Amino acid sequence: MAEDEDIGDQRGYGLDRTLALSDGVFAFAITLLVLDLTVPTLTGAASNPEIASALSRELPKFTNYFISFFVVGIWWSSHRRNFSYIRIDDGTLASLNLLFLLWIALTPFFTNLLDVYGNVQLPVALFALVQATAGCFMTVIWWYASKNNRLISKNMKANDIRKILRFNLIAPVVFLLSVGLSFFVPTVFVQFFWLLLFALLRILRIRESKMASND
Amino acid sequence: MAEDEDIGDQRGYGLDRTLALSDGVFAFAITLLVLDLTVPTLTGAASNPEIASALSRELPKFTNYFISFFVVGIWWSSHRRNFSYIRIDDGTLASLNLLFLLWIALTPFFTNLLDVYGNVQLPVALFALVQATAGCFMTVIWWYASKNNRLISKNMKANDIRKILRFNLIAPVVFLLSVGLSFFVPTVFVQFFWLLLFALLRILRIRESKMASND
Amino acid sequence: MAEDEDIGDQRGYGLDRTLALSDGVFAFAITLLVLDLTVPTLTGAASNPEIASALSRELPKFTNYFISFFVVGIWWSSHRRNFSYIRIDDGTLASLNLLFLLWIALTPFFTNLLDVYGNVQLPVALFALVQATAGCFMTVIWWYASKNNRLISKNMKANDIRKILRFNLIAPVVFLLSVGLSFFVPTVFVQFFWLLLFALLRILRIRESKMASND
Amino acid sequence: MAEDEDIGDQRGYGLDRTLALSDGVFAFAITLLVLDLTVPTLTGAASNPEIASALSRELPKFTNYFISFFVVGIWWSSHRRNFSYIRIDDGTLASLNLLFLLWIALTPFFTNLLDVYGNVQLPVALFALVQATAGCFMTVIWWYASKNNRLISKNMKANDIRKILRFNLIAPVVFLLSVGLSFFVPTVFVQFFWLLLFALLRILRIRESKMASND
Repeated sequence: MAEDEDIGDQRGYGLDRTLALSDGVFAFAITLLVLDLTVPTLTGAASNPEIASALSRELPKFTNYFISFFVVGIWWSSHRRNFSYIRIDDGTLASLNLLFLLWIALTPFFTNLLDVYGNVQLPVALFALVQATAGCFMTVIWWYASKNNRLISKNMKANDIRKILRFNLIAPVVFLLSVGLSFFVPTVFVQFFWLLLFALLRILRIRESKMASND
Repeated sequence: MAEDEDIGDQRGYGLDRTLALSDGVFAFAITLLVLDLTVPTLTGAASNPEIASALSRELPKFTNYFISFFVVGIWWSSHRRNFSYIRIDDGTLASLNLLFLLWIALTPFFTNLLDVYGNVQLPVALFALVQATAGCFMTVIWWYASKNNRLISKNMKANDIRKILRFNLIAPVVFLLSVGLSFFVPTVFVQFFWLLLFALLRILRIRESKMASND
Repeated sequence: MAEDEDIGDQRGYGLDRTLALSDGVFAFAITLLVLDLTVPTLTGAASNPEIASALSRELPKFTNYFISFFVVGIWWSSHRRNFSYIRIDDGTLASLNLLFLLWIALTPFFTNLLDVYGNVQLPVALFALVQATAGCFMTVIWWYASKNNRLISKNMKANDIRKILRFNLIAPVVFLLSVGLSFFVPTVFVQFFWLLLFALLRILRIRESKMASND
Repeated sequence: MAEDEDIGDQRGYGLDRTLALSDGVFAFAITLLVLDLTVPTLTGAASNPEIASALSRELPKFTNYFISFFVVGIWWSSHRRNFSYIRIDDGTLASLNLLFLLWIALTPFFTNLLDVYGNVQLPVALFALVQATAGCFMTVIWWYASKNNRLISKNMKANDIRKILRFNLIAPVVFLLSVGLSFFVPTVFVQFFWLLLFALLRILRIRESKMASND
């Protein structure tokens, strides 16, 4: 394969494909729990209080749907941000991305489990473990793509690359810590710990974009 | 991030991703109720009248599918029209879009509920509330994107921006009004009110495109 | 909207969106019947003959899946061919496309019905009716887009436009004829009639591409 | 169709469409088995050991999901690699691609079957047969597209084209051999044979990319 054109193709083929597959999996994962919602069958006559009480029994499924949408949505935003710097991809990046998506598609199930048995330690630890694993693969994706500016713009500075790497590390580190924590404190504290994480990420994001506009 | 190229990427990354995710969620939501349709099992011998009567018992599910397709289809058209003016996106727009899609994916369920208990006030009010919420987020998306021509063409005139904003406001305002209305009038009037909305939107759309061609 | 750029956007916005939504619906419709396939539970010990006989009871579902894939796949090819000539789209084309997709998503269900009760007239007539309706909308899409070269290349000749229109008309006309036919002849003849249609379309397609290469 | 532009359109229309449909089917197939995972309902009080033992009964479904993700993911990578060299498509390539996707969408079912009855010969042979068929269509796709550089870059050398063809042939040949093998040796050896295949493909891939960088 001596032709430059063909090598170029062979090396950087199909970033569009990787993103199309990812968005398909995200769209599916984000709407998956809608399939759980079923219109309740009433035994008596249909009236406002009857329907309200039937729907209130479905409330846990709605909560599931919202949390799942929220969590998968955050990962989508993170995926979108990381890949916005990536110019081309190769077979290794595509495989790492598949390994990341594996855990995204599992997230609705573990959200569901968390919601039903949220006061028990195991589901809380498993949810955190799945999120930590997803976060690890996202970090590895960035590390692999940015190493020696392999798949990103050659002009991107080492300092900026490291900043994004550190940002990616926050989620897996916090989730791994919370796995350990779940053995010692009540599960409600662990979930409060996760909320702290989201607040932290949001603040850092805002500070970062302010810095960017001050540059 | 001193390089112009990288700032550009960081700010306006991924409008294509936002649209790809949206179209995936729309495609899923639009075809979701097909999963409800099941071929009836007949007890006696299969004949025309037997199958016809079995299928007629499935008629409410077909109605559901058609209404759901219609309603989600209208939101897709509205999403497509609004985003046709948007040139780039940022993290905030992507998040607002996720919050909009959340209600789109819920629409098939509430259509279903409406169809089964359409003569009771609660399902009618809930359906209107879900549509109003979706409409609010669509309006906020446009307001955020068009504010100071932030994410749209710099050449777009303030007057045209306001016209689109007003157009976006019609749906949430009418649906919110119909929630109030549902407490006082029979549900069939509320649903007639919605049909008026669709007729109004269509007339305004046609007038607007005539104006555009007269310009 | 005096600016040419904005009018351009308003008129021809979002052909990419229309195609993305269509491909999402097609992908979903084409794989939908896979969800029907379930691994059989055996009562006795698992052995080759036991599993073979259990799978053979699932054979109708496999047939369904194959026919559905085949039929929806043919519509996808037709959609792809028609839209390959279309350069821009507008609100009307997007709406017509939605009305076409409505019947595509219903096709797996009617294939299923046909497969279970294929020797009864009603399911055969309904299947043909759904296909004829899809074909009508595809024809209307082409008629609307090609009328005065509205949404296609200005260089396309009236003669070529008419040739494609006639080609699009074959499927709805044949399917409508077969609805009438189904009242008079056994259903197996009607299905043989459909096969003739596919053969006819294939021959015409090959002749057409030969003509194109002789030009 | 005398105009060059129109012939160009007619011949090479819609590679983007073919890839969009493929990625949709892949995304659906890759996440399909997630739908099988259900949160267990406990009879007693919810505690760590109770939930752990309930989840362990779901373990086969998790294994299914992982294997399915892995197998479909490998086909996606292969599809992506082959199509990275293809510049345009035509009706025949689009049809061949549909015939390939047919078996991809079936893979989750046969993975499932394999997992439940993995110690019986029939499911092992059927799984290998489905994979061999998918591999055959992938090979035919490459053969058709690369024949006389029909749909690929005119600069690609005959030698490189043959190398990719041989690489595509490995999977169907090995899977067909394993069908024969399954009649004579225990199923666990057949599955070990498949692992050898994956190792072989990986080694060849690495050697190939080393060769490319040495060019």
